[in-house]
Amino acid sequence: MADTKSDSIEETSAFTPRFNEAGLIPAIAQDAMTGDILMMAWMNSEAIEKTLETQEVHYWSRSRGELWHKGATSGHIQTLVSMHVDCDQDVVLVKVTQTGAACHTGRDTCFYRKVTKDDDRLTLKPGH
Amino acid sequence: MADTKSDSIEETSAFTPRFNEAGLIPAIAQDAMTGDILMMAWMNSEAIEKTLETQEVHYWSRSRGELWHKGATSGHIQTLVSMHVDCDQDVVLVKVTQTGAACHTGRDTCFYRKVTKDDDRLTLKPGH
Repeated sequence: MADTKSDSIEETSAFTPRFNEAGLIPAIAQDAMTGDILMMAWMNSEAIEKTLETQEVHYWSRSRGELWHKGATSGHIQTLVSMHVDCDQDVVLVKVTQTGAACHTGRDTCFYRKVTKDDDRLTLKPGH
Repeated sequence: MADTKSDSIEETSAFTPRFNEAGLIPAIAQDAMTGDILMMAWMNSEAIEKTLETQEVHYWSRSRGELWHKGATSGHIQTLVSMHVDCDQDVVLVKVTQTGAACHTGRDTCFYRKVTKDDDRLTLKPGH
């Protein structure tokens, strides 16, 4: 009889990422030192493999439709510290050492605006 | 003439979340005190509204196809500290105070396993 508990997707030691219908999985990048969330992008299985192989984070660019070695052009690479997966294996987390800015706007993180409610209207204000 | 710089999605103060074709946006929950990433789930516009209105985090449950007031049953609610949006407004970040465990497995965070390469095979080991 299979040990259903340890074989469950939550408890297994087998890495079986659950990609969406486009073959992608969300990947959150967190600064390993500060704990700041830098960005969220998407990986396919090749991006996961390349990231682990090179220790530099690779994503799948949905806009360009190609493998995206983050920082290959800008120099703003993300050096992998560790890769994690969530309980039901449909989200990846990479803890990284960020060189330069994570965000294409030149900011340290992509999450530089706060959603606030003003007079029943949702607006954005600067804020981490 | 429109000020294209400040009107851009990256610089505007208008909150215009870009939902996917299913009307959903990824939402990352981070512990506001420890910086730990607790989980990632999905929100629709109602979940965003309810979260800001009640200051308790609501998601959209894709498996149940309904609004999900996190912790309503388990008591493991997430009290909102702040809500953020990323540069191109297609990811939400909520900083929260977590009551009890964030993960349905009873763990503090859903990211309790590390992806490691052993003999060319990717396996999971316990590890934040």
